[in-house]
Amino acid sequence: MADYTPPLRDIKFVLRHIADLDEIIEYPGFEHVDPETVDGALDEAGRFMAEVVAPTNRAGDEIGATWADGHVTTPDAFKEAWRKYVDAGWSAVTGPPEHGGHGFPETVGFAVSEMFVSANLAFSLNPMLTGSAITVIRDHADDELRDTYLEKLVTAEWTGTMVLTETEAGSDVGALRTKATPNEDGTYSINGSKIFITWGDHDLSDNIIHLVLARLPDAPPGTRGISLFIVPKMLVNEDGTIGAWNNVETVSIEHKLGIHGSPTCVQAYDNSIGYLVGEPNRGMGYMFAMMNQARREVGLEGLGISDRAYQQAVEYAKERTQGRAIGTPKTEVSPIIEHPDVRRMLMTMKAYNEAARALLYDTAAAGERMHRHPDEVGRRASSERVALLTPVAKAWCTDVGVEMTSIGVQVHGGMGYVEETGAAQHYRDARITPIYEGTNGIQAIDLVMRKLPMGEGNVVRSYLDEMAALDGPLGETDDPRLTAIGRSLSTGVASLSDATEWLLACEDPNDRLAGATPYLKMFGVVAGGYYLARLALAAAAEDEDPWLDAKIDTATFYAEQLLPTALGLLPSVKAGAAGLFAIPIEGLETAK
Amino acid sequence: MADYTPPLRDIKFVLRHIADLDEIIEYPGFEHVDPETVDGALDEAGRFMAEVVAPTNRAGDEIGATWADGHVTTPDAFKEAWRKYVDAGWSAVTGPPEHGGHGFPETVGFAVSEMFVSANLAFSLNPMLTGSAITVIRDHADDELRDTYLEKLVTAEWTGTMVLTETEAGSDVGALRTKATPNEDGTYSINGSKIFITWGDHDLSDNIIHLVLARLPDAPPGTRGISLFIVPKMLVNEDGTIGAWNNVETVSIEHKLGIHGSPTCVQAYDNSIGYLVGEPNRGMGYMFAMMNQARREVGLEGLGISDRAYQQAVEYAKERTQGRAIGTPKTEVSPIIEHPDVRRMLMTMKAYNEAARALLYDTAAAGERMHRHPDEVGRRASSERVALLTPVAKAWCTDVGVEMTSIGVQVHGGMGYVEETGAAQHYRDARITPIYEGTNGIQAIDLVMRKLPMGEGNVVRSYLDEMAALDGPLGETDDPRLTAIGRSLSTGVASLSDATEWLLACEDPNDRLAGATPYLKMFGVVAGGYYLARLALAAAAEDEDPWLDAKIDTATFYAEQLLPTALGLLPSVKAGAAGLFAIPIEGLETAK
Repeated sequence: MADYTPPLRDIKFVLRHIADLDEIIEYPGFEHVDPETVDGALDEAGRFMAEVVAPTNRAGDEIGATWADGHVTTPDAFKEAWRKYVDAGWSAVTGPPEHGGHGFPETVGFAVSEMFVSANLAFSLNPMLTGSAITVIRDHADDELRDTYLEKLVTAEWTGTMVLTETEAGSDVGALRTKATPNEDGTYSINGSKIFITWGDHDLSDNIIHLVLARLPDAPPGTRGISLFIVPKMLVNEDGTIGAWNNVETVSIEHKLGIHGSPTCVQAYDNSIGYLVGEPNRGMGYMFAMMNQARREVGLEGLGISDRAYQQAVEYAKERTQGRAIGTPKTEVSPIIEHPDVRRMLMTMKAYNEAARALLYDTAAAGERMHRHPDEVGRRASSERVALLTPVAKAWCTDVGVEMTSIGVQVHGGMGYVEETGAAQHYRDARITPIYEGTNGIQAIDLVMRKLPMGEGNVVRSYLDEMAALDGPLGETDDPRLTAIGRSLSTGVASLSDATEWLLACEDPNDRLAGATPYLKMFGVVAGGYYLARLALAAAAEDEDPWLDAKIDTATFYAEQLLPTALGLLPSVKAGAAGLFAIPIEGLETAK
Repeated sequence: MADYTPPLRDIKFVLRHIADLDEIIEYPGFEHVDPETVDGALDEAGRFMAEVVAPTNRAGDEIGATWADGHVTTPDAFKEAWRKYVDAGWSAVTGPPEHGGHGFPETVGFAVSEMFVSANLAFSLNPMLTGSAITVIRDHADDELRDTYLEKLVTAEWTGTMVLTETEAGSDVGALRTKATPNEDGTYSINGSKIFITWGDHDLSDNIIHLVLARLPDAPPGTRGISLFIVPKMLVNEDGTIGAWNNVETVSIEHKLGIHGSPTCVQAYDNSIGYLVGEPNRGMGYMFAMMNQARREVGLEGLGISDRAYQQAVEYAKERTQGRAIGTPKTEVSPIIEHPDVRRMLMTMKAYNEAARALLYDTAAAGERMHRHPDEVGRRASSERVALLTPVAKAWCTDVGVEMTSIGVQVHGGMGYVEETGAAQHYRDARITPIYEGTNGIQAIDLVMRKLPMGEGNVVRSYLDEMAALDGPLGETDDPRLTAIGRSLSTGVASLSDATEWLLACEDPNDRLAGATPYLKMFGVVAGGYYLARLALAAAAEDEDPWLDAKIDTATFYAEQLLPTALGLLPSVKAGAAGLFAIPIEGLETAK
């Protein structure tokens, strides 16, 4: 497997020109953060991910996490990298200072996560889930629980999980059946079986703190009757030391298509002690509050793995010689990177990745601003923006991840199908991302049914207006590439507006649901063009430099060749549900 | 893994209305074939594939082919199914009667192959490669070689392979280095190393007949200096019995992403005895003559696996309940097949599969007519048609296969990522098909650089005219669905014509090469709409029946929702190479 090069210049460029990190670090609470510290931290994180974590990716796939007698064992390479990760304090970058964290903006932590994902997706899921647990406990648990758990999670001495899914409760979490029975001492006895628990057990830390959704007796049915509990793997004594095992049994782990290094556990809770987080029956609300964060992190997984696949494809295409490009002397062979078709594959990967990165970091920055912006108007606007963009960031970027890792395989030709090369691992690993943390179908439904109607459609309209307004600055430059980008973007935005207004005006929910997935894809493709155009404008404003000039060329390629595909989706957005249901179920079955 | 239902009604409908099998069986040489015999054979083949072969698909993946001490071992389930396959004579369906075959049309054999692929792709590759070997030997070897090898290959007592690729000679076969040195007795000594030999070794038959490309001493460089040899694994005595081992050493097998049941071998030839096939230095020509057949068979693999994935997705979506579809009482849960987004996934799979099947069978029938048509004009027209369609049938149908198996995973949600479910296997297996037998990039180049210019563009124009002419019959019915299909198809064909004329007029080969892949995709999508429209018309002409009516609904869905995506590809076809090469190679590398 090829080395990983942290894309630091790209990340910093996006942090500056899309996320506007310079503004964020001026917010209250970030007095200790300045641009140089951020740059230094990112450089150091990039070095760590490339040198310590990235080399563990193959072992994670080949050896994988294994299960025996109720315990999960991770590859030795993971244990060593994890120790270094904890020792170096990378887990604590964004953690609250009062609980052992360094208090960096979450947008900076997002950049560190991107590099972690690229280095080893399966491994990175452990800190990612722990981060979700930290958010939930920080925001909703009482002081005693926070004092007991937060610092150990922030420093990664312990890790955290999210325990939601049951066999009959996947996308429909409200169908879950795990029970929580109050005990006399204020704790609860948790009983039930859960599946799909990422990093639900492992041998990297002494304790694992499970955040478990369960029902209290007499709870209302559905999502309004779900409560959230902290259920540690090992009980914690009053002095903070580890006590008895809490009857959290890891029954098995899944044999999966990819992310073999990440144990996906089936667990049984048998009178395990749980501690209620927040109010009874409010569990789903707490989970939803954390979910935007988790969903954009999954979108980031799509990008991270796609970027690693891209880097590997470029290296291979430079080294592999085959055939002669037009104009090459007959006595020579060409590296395949000189062939137009291979160049198309690489440019496609590069352009989608950079578009996805900008969309993701804009979403993450909005997620930070919704809590941190000093004024109420700014917080509300950011909160609406993050609500709108999260389903697109999650679904579009993970679909892009799957497609780009497939192109990565293709660049390698026959070698791409051989596992030793590593291209196939990216393809397998990426495939989980459109599924978990709400399938991409669920994201599309969220976008169309809940997000578009926000503010009677004015939240999405304001985003569309912002995209359309870029036509002004793009047309004002004397670079014809930027003018061309502006034209393509305007056409794309007009088509997306058409789709949006159709959905907003549509009265039949089935018709809206029918158009959800093509609409989300259209949204992603057009938004990607918008972000690349912004990056191109930013590049044009700086002194000339081949790297900056490439930003304009990348945006041009995208605008001319990828963005127009969005227009082909408009008919399916507006087709309604009738065509999908014209054939009855029996007619979908195969006739002998 | 779900059962496999052979799609016999679909296959027969396409054989009748697209391939026009009724005409083919009237050709000389098929006097013993009638529609009832064909139907009976297909029914029986379907039963065999479903009952005997399909159940071996998981074992093939989980156990796989293994290598030790120079020998490949297949799963026990394969041995049993292979014995039944040989005993039942399925290998011999299309084989020449004078060499033990049943002499059925190859178009019928194609249908049998589809079901074999769906049942177990990895397993089906062995007979498929054997079929290629039969074609080459039948068409180019001398009588002595034919007498020695053909019957045993036709009856599958022995199997055959294609030995082309070397480490430095993949897409560029002309770079190969394996040597053939003449011996005094008229045989040749073959020396060299070869890779990617599908079913290069196994334990299913007593002998394996390798068709090996090698260079004679003083052969011209490149593809014009390649000769073709029969190199049996075991030498054959004059009486036809098996003699000594021929020094064909299987050095290792690849550890692949999928098709684990198909051993992909690395072989070393060490003074192995080879028999020249045909003339010296004509090997590439013989291979190319066989390649159209092999390429459409790989296209068929894309369809076959996609159809199996579709069937499995439908079954899962019917059984899995989650959430409530609009209008469902609050006390109930809905099978996910009732959700519009899931229905969209299934309709998309169904529509693409049926479009791909029609394109493939049309190509296969043309491939048969080019040899069998009773008059010269018919043979030439078919030969041009098969030349034009083969790259599209190979590349588009395999890209569709990858995309549809990915949707198949998605329909299963989290369960799709768990290997036991089987959806992931289809996704892994399908991924080889855009790579081997000429990558899809190579197919696109073939289409644009060699096929479009045929007859100064009139071969493709005549196909486009044929598509455009369907507007007439579609508009003449009183079914508004058919009229709508006609409108969409006309728009698509106009756009494809625009792209075609641009490519034909384009003088810079790099610009043509740059547009090749989006053009091929556009071609496939529009052609798919054309074939579904033909099937819809055929259905409309028969008595009403829900199955026939579904053909019109499927074509309508495709025309309204999938076909328009072709239009979004036009800009990238016509963009030229400049945008692909604007960024120099260094600029594609990741900057720290």
